[in-house]
Amino acid sequence: MCVFAAIIFLFLGSVKGFSTKSEACTYNKGSLCKPALANAAFSTIAFLLGALTSVLSGFLGMKIATYANARTTLEARKGVGKAFVTAFRSGAVMGFLLAANGLLVLYISILLFKLYYGDDWEGLYESITGYGLGGSSMALFGRVGGGIYTKAADVGADLVGKVELNIPEDDPRNPAVIADNVGDNVGDIAGMGSDLFGSYAESSCAALFVASISSFGISHDYTAMSFPLIISSVGIVVCLITTLFATDLFKIKDVSEIEPSLKRQLVVSTILMTVGIAMVSFFALPSEFTIFNFGTEKVVKNWHLFFCVAIGLWAGLVIGYTTEYYTSNAYSPVQDVADSCRTGAATNVIFGLALGYKSVIIPIFSIAVAIFVSFSLAAMYGIAVAALGMLSTIATGLAIDAYGPISDNAGGIAEMAGMSHKIRERTDALDAAGNTTAAIGKGFAIGSAALVSLALFGAFVSRAGINTVDVLTPKVFIGLIVGAMLPYWFSAMTMKSVGSAALKMVEEVRRQFKTIPGLMEGRAKPDYANCVKISTDASLREMIPPGALVMLTPLITGTLFGVETLAGVLAGSLVSGVQVAISASNTGGAWDNAKKYIEAGVSEHAKSLGPKGSDPHKAAVIGDTIGDPLKDTSGPSLNILIKLMAVESLVFAPFFAAHGGLLFKYL
Amino acid sequence: MCVFAAIIFLFLGSVKGFSTKSEACTYNKGSLCKPALANAAFSTIAFLLGALTSVLSGFLGMKIATYANARTTLEARKGVGKAFVTAFRSGAVMGFLLAANGLLVLYISILLFKLYYGDDWEGLYESITGYGLGGSSMALFGRVGGGIYTKAADVGADLVGKVELNIPEDDPRNPAVIADNVGDNVGDIAGMGSDLFGSYAESSCAALFVASISSFGISHDYTAMSFPLIISSVGIVVCLITTLFATDLFKIKDVSEIEPSLKRQLVVSTILMTVGIAMVSFFALPSEFTIFNFGTEKVVKNWHLFFCVAIGLWAGLVIGYTTEYYTSNAYSPVQDVADSCRTGAATNVIFGLALGYKSVIIPIFSIAVAIFVSFSLAAMYGIAVAALGMLSTIATGLAIDAYGPISDNAGGIAEMAGMSHKIRERTDALDAAGNTTAAIGKGFAIGSAALVSLALFGAFVSRAGINTVDVLTPKVFIGLIVGAMLPYWFSAMTMKSVGSAALKMVEEVRRQFKTIPGLMEGRAKPDYANCVKISTDASLREMIPPGALVMLTPLITGTLFGVETLAGVLAGSLVSGVQVAISASNTGGAWDNAKKYIEAGVSEHAKSLGPKGSDPHKAAVIGDTIGDPLKDTSGPSLNILIKLMAVESLVFAPFFAAHGGLLFKYL
Repeated sequence: MCVFAAIIFLFLGSVKGFSTKSEACTYNKGSLCKPALANAAFSTIAFLLGALTSVLSGFLGMKIATYANARTTLEARKGVGKAFVTAFRSGAVMGFLLAANGLLVLYISILLFKLYYGDDWEGLYESITGYGLGGSSMALFGRVGGGIYTKAADVGADLVGKVELNIPEDDPRNPAVIADNVGDNVGDIAGMGSDLFGSYAESSCAALFVASISSFGISHDYTAMSFPLIISSVGIVVCLITTLFATDLFKIKDVSEIEPSLKRQLVVSTILMTVGIAMVSFFALPSEFTIFNFGTEKVVKNWHLFFCVAIGLWAGLVIGYTTEYYTSNAYSPVQDVADSCRTGAATNVIFGLALGYKSVIIPIFSIAVAIFVSFSLAAMYGIAVAALGMLSTIATGLAIDAYGPISDNAGGIAEMAGMSHKIRERTDALDAAGNTTAAIGKGFAIGSAALVSLALFGAFVSRAGINTVDVLTPKVFIGLIVGAMLPYWFSAMTMKSVGSAALKMVEEVRRQFKTIPGLMEGRAKPDYANCVKISTDASLREMIPPGALVMLTPLITGTLFGVETLAGVLAGSLVSGVQVAISASNTGGAWDNAKKYIEAGVSEHAKSLGPKGSDPHKAAVIGDTIGDPLKDTSGPSLNILIKLMAVESLVFAPFFAAHGGLLFKYL
Repeated sequence: MCVFAAIIFLFLGSVKGFSTKSEACTYNKGSLCKPALANAAFSTIAFLLGALTSVLSGFLGMKIATYANARTTLEARKGVGKAFVTAFRSGAVMGFLLAANGLLVLYISILLFKLYYGDDWEGLYESITGYGLGGSSMALFGRVGGGIYTKAADVGADLVGKVELNIPEDDPRNPAVIADNVGDNVGDIAGMGSDLFGSYAESSCAALFVASISSFGISHDYTAMSFPLIISSVGIVVCLITTLFATDLFKIKDVSEIEPSLKRQLVVSTILMTVGIAMVSFFALPSEFTIFNFGTEKVVKNWHLFFCVAIGLWAGLVIGYTTEYYTSNAYSPVQDVADSCRTGAATNVIFGLALGYKSVIIPIFSIAVAIFVSFSLAAMYGIAVAALGMLSTIATGLAIDAYGPISDNAGGIAEMAGMSHKIRERTDALDAAGNTTAAIGKGFAIGSAALVSLALFGAFVSRAGINTVDVLTPKVFIGLIVGAMLPYWFSAMTMKSVGSAALKMVEEVRRQFKTIPGLMEGRAKPDYANCVKISTDASLREMIPPGALVMLTPLITGTLFGVETLAGVLAGSLVSGVQVAISASNTGGAWDNAKKYIEAGVSEHAKSLGPKGSDPHKAAVIGDTIGDPLKDTSGPSLNILIKLMAVESLVFAPFFAAHGGLLFKYL
């Protein structure tokens, strides 16, 4: 963080040669703006604040989750309803904490920065973009590092424990079992939280920046300017009301009510939020205003913005439900994949990959519709608020998402504590519902990442001072094709990382079973700490190459090739990365649930494929293992790739515009 | 063909309301051009000629290959050198036939069309673009239909024969064995041939079209205008000389010389062709001229065009060699994948997918460099001739590519005819070398498809009369993101097609073994014809959905959303499709060769993984089966997706420009 903060300060400070003189504003002609050096300093501070907020949220989220899982296990003794409420409320605490924290720090920063900036809104909101970069760069650790951590532990524990030694999942004799449980918290709580926090911070910053150079900013209408923040505030209230539907209005009495209850949360929050958006749009905004649109001004009405936010919100719901359709074993796609296990692992993989490819169609069309409507109505500002719309119910989204790993760990604790079979059954039921909602959460995260990146891309282009990104120029086109390649490069790295980290874990687990006498018989304790250490070290070391790829690409491209090529890279990685991310996540989710479908054996069809240990089940286990890195590491990490490159470009845009494109200048 | 010819005629004829009056030219202002109705009629004729030439080439190619494979088996009795020369010469006949045929028909068509068009070069070369569309639409049958055919037969034959009944490959008792052999010819000979023929025809048409609206066309410089055709002619001569290096100058005496000899062909042809291009560029072109560049004119010198063609040619070589590095088991990438089979099929698949993702990096960078140089030097004309440069050694490329299935089938014939073990060993050695060159050929095909599509895209944009394709407009951006999704949709369809066609084949083979008494003991003959019929029917039926996706997308997008959105779709599917195609082909190739590496057991490392039937080998077989549809169906089919959509858009551009974008007009 400190090194990168220094880079930000140096690069941005150098834009005007570290001059401390005030300059004429870029957009609000005639006024005087603060010097570039001040923007550099405040961007750096905003960056640090964003990063610290993200770290704090992740830390508190993991604290909450680790307290909550033991409590959930204890509550499970009293019944499934009580356990559900505990797990869900804990998830909600995490969700509200993150949403409120992010908003609060951002709001206070704006107020404090304003003390210095005064009337210079351009400079103020330019500096605030550092907040988004800070939030997102920590997500690199959460998502990429966390993804490697959790899957190295998971795959390592399974390959030795379940496959080689035939001991059950979460068995305390397995040295990697604690690392596996920790991993759930690192990857799914801290990773998902920092990812969504990053999206939230970035879309707010992108919206605020575009607003500052639009008529809100120029006429200094503070309420209208704060529209993005107000949406998020209303979102928190809406999510609070929504939570009551799960915990108080409808009490869970039976296992079968868990999943519908969680899914109802999404629908309820979306409907309530639509009303909320309508109110905010009519009260906070002037009835007509202009939005900056790449050099021209676009006239927009307040109800246009209502549609922008609402379409983002509803697109999120469509993406969430599509993800569920393709990854839940209640529907035919996953059942077909399970059926293909009859002819072996190869057909399982072929059908799973085909399912993942197919599952991108509806999400992409809904993202395209959301983009088209919001882009047409209010240019890049429309996209940014559409992203905020999708993220406005972030507290609910995170609540049902964090619920998953909490229930998962509760089951692990029940197993390790040797509690009765009945309690394990209850926690398993909670966990099964969590699996589906986790997939929905991933869909949301990717969808919002796509909108956020586009908004950041637009803000970057505006800030870099270019008015068109024409595919029909060589500079842009090579950026586009190389950008479309980056998700593949990045995925190759993260998948390989999981593979080699898992192999290290396998060796350590094997070593402990060999060298610790009485471990297999349960007379000796394994060295859990060493496995945790291996996962930690491996994840931190292995995230360096993919992290470097993400952080250096915009810097190198911008400095050597200039802003047009960089714009191409951003557009290319966005349109290509979304597809890879969705297909990887859904393929992995489908394999996971196809295996669970065979194991559960609820229908006649499922029974004909089972039981555990049958040939189709073995084929399904292979698919599940392949899917682990796809759905929990390489897939979700791509969100970070596309967002982080875009926000980094936005922050460094003035530098690239002033000093970038060295290669073309000297050729 | 007839239905689509009618559509072309009706759509293009309607541009000016079927008027038979001459019109002012679009680019060469002041002159009078032939009526749009004439262009519609001649485009239709050109389309039919292109399609017929493609069909004829494919038909003759399969004839040659099926004569050649028996002869190769016979020659193998005399020694490996003789067999090699037979197989290679047969491949070369196919290569030269295709290159010469394509050029001849195109040249004669231009001369004949010129009798009507006279001075109207714009109309003449606009009509000629139909030739490219015709060639490419037949490639849909060859690549997609052929790909489904060959893999349905292959996977079906293997799943029952090798896995269930444990009889060797190519055993005449297996009812699907003939379908499998036929499939090699359909997929690899007709499919590859029609794909490359399509690329060749399309890049020539794109170059000719751009030239006709540049200064060559306006000043009626026929020799300079024919530059693309002259490059191809020189290519044929160069390839003729190159062939002598394999058959006469260096005689094959040992098995180990086969692969270097084939790879030497590529280097020799590239070096000789570079000289050829230099000569053509200096003799055929004026020293300075202007090229149409989206509304402006770009001044170009003849040596600029030399660089454009040469960089395409050399980029092809780099792509070919990178493909070889990632798919040949002589290098560490495939050996690593083979090594990962120790921990089972799951790690094999994870490492194989990661390898495929990684293998796109160098090809994309070399395509990007080729695009940047040729685009900067000579705009879209530069791209088109760079594609022609890559394809100028098509005869050699096809020779070493067709060599593969010929040797493969020669081995099958030796097995079925019960010839001695020694002969089978020789044909196996020929086949092993063919595997590597087939991967190189696929790399070439994808690389050239990328350049060709971009050239067609440029020609489409020019013909549609738009001067910028700005990513920062909602119309273009939604096209871009939906276009980037199409390769996934298409791949999902083709992979599922192979899966269900293979299942049908499995059922038929099982049925024959059950109902024909004495089949397993070799006393009765299986019903080969029925298996061939199943593959044929399935491939034709299963190619309808993906074919419809390709053919209808440009028509629907152009008609409803207009040329800007269509331009976005083309750019998106191009930049995303190339990545999917390269990674799918190389992943599949790597799995195939990882399995062969374990089976061959040449090194100590390979021996430690084998022998046949060991656990690592079983894991490798699973990878190989997954890779079959990836590398032979869905991967290469994407070439057709990106090229065919682009050429179709080019042909229909006047219609879309005149009547397209209905949705936006009425909203």
